[in-house]
Amino acid sequence: MDVTYTPIGHVRSPHDSPADVTRENARETTGEIVLEDAYEAGLEGLEEFSHVVVFTHLDEVEEHRLTSRPPHATDLEVGVFATRSPHRPNPIAQTVLEVRGLEGTTLTVRGLDLLDGTPVLDLKPYVPAVDDDELSIGWLES
Amino acid sequence: MDVTYTPIGHVRSPHDSPADVTRENARETTGEIVLEDAYEAGLEGLEEFSHVVVFTHLDEVEEHRLTSRPPHATDLEVGVFATRSPHRPNPIAQTVLEVRGLEGTTLTVRGLDLLDGTPVLDLKPYVPAVDDDELSIGWLES
Repeated sequence: MDVTYTPIGHVRSPHDSPADVTRENARETTGEIVLEDAYEAGLEGLEEFSHVVVFTHLDEVEEHRLTSRPPHATDLEVGVFATRSPHRPNPIAQTVLEVRGLEGTTLTVRGLDLLDGTPVLDLKPYVPAVDDDELSIGWLES
Repeated sequence: MDVTYTPIGHVRSPHDSPADVTRENARETTGEIVLEDAYEAGLEGLEEFSHVVVFTHLDEVEEHRLTSRPPHATDLEVGVFATRSPHRPNPIAQTVLEVRGLEGTTLTVRGLDLLDGTPVLDLKPYVPAVDDDELSIGWLES
């Protein structure tokens, strides 16, 4: 059974196309998450967290691939669910951003690799989930 | 514009209702994420990560509230986007689970607080995003 969501807002970003974004410039990029007015009360307290997790729908992704070659890896091919590739069956992006300010329904954030106009589905506070000594990160180690 | 997703699989869990789940028993609960057969190649390499992030649709949630009182907090009320409350406009849950094994399209996981049959939208490898010295966690500090 399909699942339908109505976006709660959108991203305001200086990035207009994927070609504008690099890992390096994303780190320094400031932009805004703008929610619909009706959700203002839902943001209360979020500005006290250093980081927010933003869930967006990557509306420019038109097809998915079951495996992908990670950037910089020449002879490695891994399953799409072992990567953060946007070309996934349900193109939901999970992005951790630094919270810089909140005014009304506009959240100012830093570290943005999302494109201008990307629909926002949800926001949650960022809380680390796993202790370092219990962690391993597969192909990303190399 | 609404967004429509087709679940890629479902959760197999010993928990049948929210009343079955406590923070304590969830930590020890083992279950399975079962994907549709067509997605088998997409899982390759995921078993080398210690933890997976599972995105599910909380299909039993029927309404949302803009603010909520966190459990154990008597005089605190915060916005829903500053909490992980399931009663959110788009009830997407993000759950970090320990990977215990992979066979075909069945991923065995530990730490499960999800209910049996919950639709799965996406899986991503868990990778920590923020260094401890840059982190603050708002009302959760108390």
